[in-house]
Amino acid sequence: MNSPDFVPADEVLSGETADVYFAHTIEILRREGINPVATMEVFPSRAGILCGMEEVKALLARVLPKDRRDVWALSDGDVIDRKEVVLRITAPYQSYGLYETAIVGILAHCSGWATAARQCVDAAHGIPIVSFGARHVHPSVAGTMDYSAMVGGCAGCSSVAGARMAGIQPSGTMPHALILIMGDTVAATEAFDRHMPPDVPRISLVDTFKDEAEESLRVAEALGNRLNSVRLDTPGERGRVTADLVREVRARLNLAGFRHVGIFVSGGIDPERINYFLENHAPVDGFGVGSYISGARPIDFTADLHEVDTRPVAKRGRTPGITPNPRLNRIL
Amino acid sequence: MNSPDFVPADEVLSGETADVYFAHTIEILRREGINPVATMEVFPSRAGILCGMEEVKALLARVLPKDRRDVWALSDGDVIDRKEVVLRITAPYQSYGLYETAIVGILAHCSGWATAARQCVDAAHGIPIVSFGARHVHPSVAGTMDYSAMVGGCAGCSSVAGARMAGIQPSGTMPHALILIMGDTVAATEAFDRHMPPDVPRISLVDTFKDEAEESLRVAEALGNRLNSVRLDTPGERGRVTADLVREVRARLNLAGFRHVGIFVSGGIDPERINYFLENHAPVDGFGVGSYISGARPIDFTADLHEVDTRPVAKRGRTPGITPNPRLNRIL
Amino acid sequence: MNSPDFVPADEVLSGETADVYFAHTIEILRREGINPVATMEVFPSRAGILCGMEEVKALLARVLPKDRRDVWALSDGDVIDRKEVVLRITAPYQSYGLYETAIVGILAHCSGWATAARQCVDAAHGIPIVSFGARHVHPSVAGTMDYSAMVGGCAGCSSVAGARMAGIQPSGTMPHALILIMGDTVAATEAFDRHMPPDVPRISLVDTFKDEAEESLRVAEALGNRLNSVRLDTPGERGRVTADLVREVRARLNLAGFRHVGIFVSGGIDPERINYFLENHAPVDGFGVGSYISGARPIDFTADLHEVDTRPVAKRGRTPGITPNPRLNRIL
Amino acid sequence: MNSPDFVPADEVLSGETADVYFAHTIEILRREGINPVATMEVFPSRAGILCGMEEVKALLARVLPKDRRDVWALSDGDVIDRKEVVLRITAPYQSYGLYETAIVGILAHCSGWATAARQCVDAAHGIPIVSFGARHVHPSVAGTMDYSAMVGGCAGCSSVAGARMAGIQPSGTMPHALILIMGDTVAATEAFDRHMPPDVPRISLVDTFKDEAEESLRVAEALGNRLNSVRLDTPGERGRVTADLVREVRARLNLAGFRHVGIFVSGGIDPERINYFLENHAPVDGFGVGSYISGARPIDFTADLHEVDTRPVAKRGRTPGITPNPRLNRIL
Amino acid sequence: MNSPDFVPADEVLSGETADVYFAHTIEILRREGINPVATMEVFPSRAGILCGMEEVKALLARVLPKDRRDVWALSDGDVIDRKEVVLRITAPYQSYGLYETAIVGILAHCSGWATAARQCVDAAHGIPIVSFGARHVHPSVAGTMDYSAMVGGCAGCSSVAGARMAGIQPSGTMPHALILIMGDTVAATEAFDRHMPPDVPRISLVDTFKDEAEESLRVAEALGNRLNSVRLDTPGERGRVTADLVREVRARLNLAGFRHVGIFVSGGIDPERINYFLENHAPVDGFGVGSYISGARPIDFTADLHEVDTRPVAKRGRTPGITPNPRLNRIL
Amino acid sequence: MNSPDFVPADEVLSGETADVYFAHTIEILRREGINPVATMEVFPSRAGILCGMEEVKALLARVLPKDRRDVWALSDGDVIDRKEVVLRITAPYQSYGLYETAIVGILAHCSGWATAARQCVDAAHGIPIVSFGARHVHPSVAGTMDYSAMVGGCAGCSSVAGARMAGIQPSGTMPHALILIMGDTVAATEAFDRHMPPDVPRISLVDTFKDEAEESLRVAEALGNRLNSVRLDTPGERGRVTADLVREVRARLNLAGFRHVGIFVSGGIDPERINYFLENHAPVDGFGVGSYISGARPIDFTADLHEVDTRPVAKRGRTPGITPNPRLNRIL
Repeated sequence: MNSPDFVPADEVLSGETADVYFAHTIEILRREGINPVATMEVFPSRAGILCGMEEVKALLARVLPKDRRDVWALSDGDVIDRKEVVLRITAPYQSYGLYETAIVGILAHCSGWATAARQCVDAAHGIPIVSFGARHVHPSVAGTMDYSAMVGGCAGCSSVAGARMAGIQPSGTMPHALILIMGDTVAATEAFDRHMPPDVPRISLVDTFKDEAEESLRVAEALGNRLNSVRLDTPGERGRVTADLVREVRARLNLAGFRHVGIFVSGGIDPERINYFLENHAPVDGFGVGSYISGARPIDFTADLHEVDTRPVAKRGRTPGITPNPRLNRIL
Repeated sequence: MNSPDFVPADEVLSGETADVYFAHTIEILRREGINPVATMEVFPSRAGILCGMEEVKALLARVLPKDRRDVWALSDGDVIDRKEVVLRITAPYQSYGLYETAIVGILAHCSGWATAARQCVDAAHGIPIVSFGARHVHPSVAGTMDYSAMVGGCAGCSSVAGARMAGIQPSGTMPHALILIMGDTVAATEAFDRHMPPDVPRISLVDTFKDEAEESLRVAEALGNRLNSVRLDTPGERGRVTADLVREVRARLNLAGFRHVGIFVSGGIDPERINYFLENHAPVDGFGVGSYISGARPIDFTADLHEVDTRPVAKRGRTPGITPNPRLNRIL
Repeated sequence: MNSPDFVPADEVLSGETADVYFAHTIEILRREGINPVATMEVFPSRAGILCGMEEVKALLARVLPKDRRDVWALSDGDVIDRKEVVLRITAPYQSYGLYETAIVGILAHCSGWATAARQCVDAAHGIPIVSFGARHVHPSVAGTMDYSAMVGGCAGCSSVAGARMAGIQPSGTMPHALILIMGDTVAATEAFDRHMPPDVPRISLVDTFKDEAEESLRVAEALGNRLNSVRLDTPGERGRVTADLVREVRARLNLAGFRHVGIFVSGGIDPERINYFLENHAPVDGFGVGSYISGARPIDFTADLHEVDTRPVAKRGRTPGITPNPRLNRIL
Repeated sequence: MNSPDFVPADEVLSGETADVYFAHTIEILRREGINPVATMEVFPSRAGILCGMEEVKALLARVLPKDRRDVWALSDGDVIDRKEVVLRITAPYQSYGLYETAIVGILAHCSGWATAARQCVDAAHGIPIVSFGARHVHPSVAGTMDYSAMVGGCAGCSSVAGARMAGIQPSGTMPHALILIMGDTVAATEAFDRHMPPDVPRISLVDTFKDEAEESLRVAEALGNRLNSVRLDTPGERGRVTADLVREVRARLNLAGFRHVGIFVSGGIDPERINYFLENHAPVDGFGVGSYISGARPIDFTADLHEVDTRPVAKRGRTPGITPNPRLNRIL
Repeated sequence: MNSPDFVPADEVLSGETADVYFAHTIEILRREGINPVATMEVFPSRAGILCGMEEVKALLARVLPKDRRDVWALSDGDVIDRKEVVLRITAPYQSYGLYETAIVGILAHCSGWATAARQCVDAAHGIPIVSFGARHVHPSVAGTMDYSAMVGGCAGCSSVAGARMAGIQPSGTMPHALILIMGDTVAATEAFDRHMPPDVPRISLVDTFKDEAEESLRVAEALGNRLNSVRLDTPGERGRVTADLVREVRARLNLAGFRHVGIFVSGGIDPERINYFLENHAPVDGFGVGSYISGARPIDFTADLHEVDTRPVAKRGRTPGITPNPRLNRIL
Repeated sequence: MNSPDFVPADEVLSGETADVYFAHTIEILRREGINPVATMEVFPSRAGILCGMEEVKALLARVLPKDRRDVWALSDGDVIDRKEVVLRITAPYQSYGLYETAIVGILAHCSGWATAARQCVDAAHGIPIVSFGARHVHPSVAGTMDYSAMVGGCAGCSSVAGARMAGIQPSGTMPHALILIMGDTVAATEAFDRHMPPDVPRISLVDTFKDEAEESLRVAEALGNRLNSVRLDTPGERGRVTADLVREVRARLNLAGFRHVGIFVSGGIDPERINYFLENHAPVDGFGVGSYISGARPIDFTADLHEVDTRPVAKRGRTPGITPNPRLNRIL
């Protein structure tokens, strides 16, 4: 997986997306003629997986004066601890004060997604996780969300934008809509097979019209060796996908000679549910995870000034001066 | 509060932000020469406040054929029920199938924010709520988040972008950074007062260096009638803002003749905390709410085909045919 | 519903089924020449529905001396309270002491079953309950169990013996075995229709091979107006019968013009589950209840002597003398 | 302990105790001329102690054709696991289909009793348990219940019928009724001693009239070495038997030189209560257990067809074909 | 009930019982020549019944200068609220500063006892409560504890000192020791009856040697009309006194014609237990309460300066100036 | 720490503080001429730390006949178990029967305090605990309470009386009252420093007027090396003392070069709170504990006669005769 070339958006650079009081602050300091070299430290409110630092770095590289900057940070994908300093910026305050909102916002949202993804990945003990949650977030962040999920350890994602950011092919099966329009799962799967390039895996969604086990056998008979997997996505109204269903479909596929056909499970998947499938020995070959990752709460980050013109400072409740963290590397 | 003119983004229109399987589906249907008039219904997984429909409408107005479309919906700000149909699109499927991800994504994220905002507004029984959470989301959605919070009932927001969308002035006080750089709360407040236009309210943040009650009296004495409010934001390390603190600051301000100075409270505010202040008779004049709103979980929305060429259809677990909802209005 | 003519079994009359210490007691009293007129009162350890009294009465009528007996009791089907006296026997002790085990055993087991049945009936608010639990009890009590369930309010039962005791026709649909042997649900239902007398309702079990909704439509099309109901019995491995499934099958049957076909639900049904279906507006036409009724814990009954030769007595912990209960009627 | 010669009851053989739909099924198959060799597997819904298999074997031996039967099973007293196959019948379906209700009913009820008994036996760590629960079940199953309790590990039982099935002497002390009629515990105990054969142990019930410790000393003084034990059965109204009471009675008996007199405890005994006595070092010599064993819930058993004429079959939710279980032995 | 003439102890007046830092404070102020008129307010940390104010008043009357004092307070027995001001002293600080420890200590301990007593009295709905807890506190406060219990509403107490303070006769029955020494409850009760003055009620303790019901009848027969009550005090080892036991003893006494004999219950009595007896309709004529009252946690009181030489002051967390409370009355 | 010379109080010796029924008992026995040598055993209702035995010993030494006494006991400070015999008195009953109330009352109250103190000491893992709770108990027991706290392991106490009993100097800092009267924390601390002898440690209370961290630096600058510690006592209205506050004050003191200044914490301290500070690595140098120790529930003790004139006796529920306890030592 690659990291994309992040380009700061115009509305970030202009302060449009910032809290207005930072614009006020810069204005006041400018008028007062005050522009100290200030050190700001950023830390999270809870432990997790860091993500968004590459994007933050691209922003800082653009705004900080090249000869008066000193930036230390951890990296995307790092495990971070509660209250651990993950970023330390030393530079003239007027050059970066306006971007505090964007910096902590990027880290908060991306780390929230990456952390949730990692929880699923850890629970799955090696079974691949694909991020399917683009449908639960605003399209402006769909790609970033999927990219963060992959930073957290997902094997793939469904959005084109997210996959492009990570430099991989997007993953997908087929929607219920295609099957409902075609009127039959086998017909839809055959049409898929007819028109899609050979490198797109044939994964048939088998819960639209008929019993999942019956439909699995029908599509397997129709596509034979070209069928990669079946996807079980039984809705809650029908009792969701159970471990017993996975075991039964596996047994019936095997009995009919289709051992090569994988079983992909989706629908309300989260670490607890993944754990349930593993504990009940369900032979799952892949999980699609939606809102557990994409709807994850951001991890709040706090940015504090700890030095002003080399003088240790801190607001009440914090300790003045630099907070040591030997894990930090200089990035700018 | 106005609603802005939403303009669909290029990467939404191109399908870049969509799940890849919708691109596959449109491709397959095109090659098979299938393009039925299909009716898609959209409903939420839990109750809340609807938001994002104006933005969805702008997208549909752009992509649906003007003479073959029939779209019914509820409005932004409406209270919606679990599983209630909030949007029904009837049009040739190829014209909109690619946008399912964006449509439910917009509604999910925006309704999640609006719903959380409404919970705070309801808890506050008339005390104004200001959205302060831009710092917990990616800057690409900071404006949309604040706009959704105002759809949910907030009286203001801190991001410039969100305020612009709602057609109001952004709200803000001053950051700890300004005070730490200036070295004294009174000095910082006086500088703010010197340089800010008269229509920006003077709200002084009083927990940076000294005891909040002591500092409140100091800034009140310095600015006199020009001081609008003090903001209490005591960090968790110092026991957070308590109802007793608000009462005490109120009493000490009153004793010194500063009855006109309001008290604005922020820091970990959520409905439970708002309720705590009200139950303990704390004379709060405004609440700043951050991650409770901006970090709210999206409300998952589901999009289902219910008719294909006037034929009732549905996947297993759903009921074929149109789901009646007399609350819907035709929007396109 | 009738009450059968109970005939005391030989092994009850001989004391074979009694606790051995009652045989010892009668032997000792006989050798000591002691045979006082003693009053025994019987009460339950918890509230419920009384059942078994008719059978007890038949036993007492057989063993008590006709001229020296005085027996008062409540009736089968009566609501009884914790510690309420439900039976009071006054007669020479040697005539009935041996039967204490049988008397309280009959009341305990039958009242346990009737009480559980009543809980289901109450929960169902008028939807008929059929007792299906013969398969969870020893065949020696299968009929008595089903009879007790009907005393408790069930509309029918599946065992031939229970139905005979209550003077009704036994209820039944078809087992999975028939369908598995015939290889197809429609074929099995048609065979049933071919060979069963017209007064046996055609109720087809629709979860054996295919999706329940699909199979319901297939059997409805095959039998048309002759089809009485479908039975949903989805196993736990497939997520049990859900309220949504019932609603969906109802909708699909209606859409296809089969409004006359009822829906009968079984599988792990208990009052909580019945309540779930009602609260979720599932249009159920009948419930089959198994082990909740047939596996119900007996209600312990206690038998205490309260008078011996007109002298009030009681063991420690009880009050000497007759316990007044105006609800009792003389039965012998 | 022996196993009795079980003789199938006429009403079982006639199908009188069966669910009526099995009679229907046999009738339909006969008319259709269908009688495949079918394999039925039986498994429990939860773990426990198997009981009833001897009785089931007697039934199958009677009804299956001797030259076309193949029956494998576990044995009475075996520890069985949830969903473990305990019985596999291969034979022409018409020969045994009618008996499914009886087969699973016998196993359910008997295994429920044996399992509860085993829980008490395990809790008691070697202190003998006597089944005293005949008074909580219908007399038709009183003997079978006590027999099952002994299969589960009880050292004795109170019903004559149960003891006869197990080939032992029934156990018993004396009822409160004897003492109330005689008017004094010592008088009753002396009468018992006068008239009972020497091999019946003298166990005096000491809580009827006086303080248990005082009464224990009185009967010990009256019978001397002939007294086997005292039984403590203090009712709930008087605080039940406590561990302290047992210890105190033991101490007072020892102090008076009656170390040979045992202490037998009854009244609401279950594994939790047994554990309480052991944890509190109460010197109990035997426990009488009533409704915990006799009122135990049956263990539901399920019977599934897995092969029809050598073809693997299964209803939805189950796996087609024979389920391997190396623990099974051929019994017919 | 009277209030005694409290006389301040020498070691209180000398500061011996005070926190040493108050002695330091007085010393420092004296050396600095500072002795402002200061107003101290005292409030409790939780709601309850006020007690100890009479004793505090006696102390203040002794130490405050008669012409420069102004003391307002609530009264012993008053219901007080959390944080309600119960005492306000205005006087030269040096005259009373040393006594803060004693003032709040007296109120804390006494109010704790009175509050617990009131909870029992409220629970008993008119049945008299007698304080029996002298044995759980140091003898230096036994009288004060019992006096406080009576301020809280008890009808009597067992300690001579407490009764003397309240101006009543102490209450008592007889100890187990007397009965154990005399060897028989009837003998002990007869000796009591022989030697005690006629105005001491004959209350016999009936659980020492024999069953309580049996012993109650024995003492009632021995003393006849002279017997006032029996006391049930069954120890935990014997299952404590139960509501059923009280009902049974009542029934057996009535059956024998001793309706005039009351039933007094003791042993682990607290409001929950009192409620249990009342809910179960136990005919109790009096409760003896021990450690629930005497072992009650003190109610912490806080003393704060609110004015110094007419200037409103307060430490952080409190509001400067007099706290209005219209319920206060001037006491000095 | 020493043990003081306890002198029995007159009102204890006269029976004034006793339960009246003991006076009655002695009177009756005297009139009956009964005075057996009786053995009384005393045991606690729960485990803890024994305290009060020295005081009990002084009482017994005074009242028991020197030539007919035999007293065995455990010692103050010993860990004792539930129901363990801690005191056994053998002497003529008339000589000590009157003092049962005082004996068990002294042990109950003192052991309750010592046990609570030990819990704090154990939680603090070596950080000194000072007893500050005199203000929550009646002054008659303030000294005894503090003495018991020191028997439990406290390093000091605030009451003069308690310190005198233990033979140490009382501990104390300064009250809020001194600072409120002086009007400034630094001024008050300087006055303290001026007038107190050099051996009284200078501990400044820093939460009265200003932020604790700010005030700590101010007093440290004022007193320099003479400052021993600061005391943090932040009230609940201001969020109590937090671990973060302690860490911050430590950091700010160190940054300013005041590493020699200790931090003493008080306000609602109990074992759970101590544990919280330790788990969160707060560098606390001492804890002041108030009502957790002084308001601790007494440990109920029970006194039972076990022999009367060498004959084993016991009331129901207890075992007759001497209870062996090899840990006892003869004390009289």
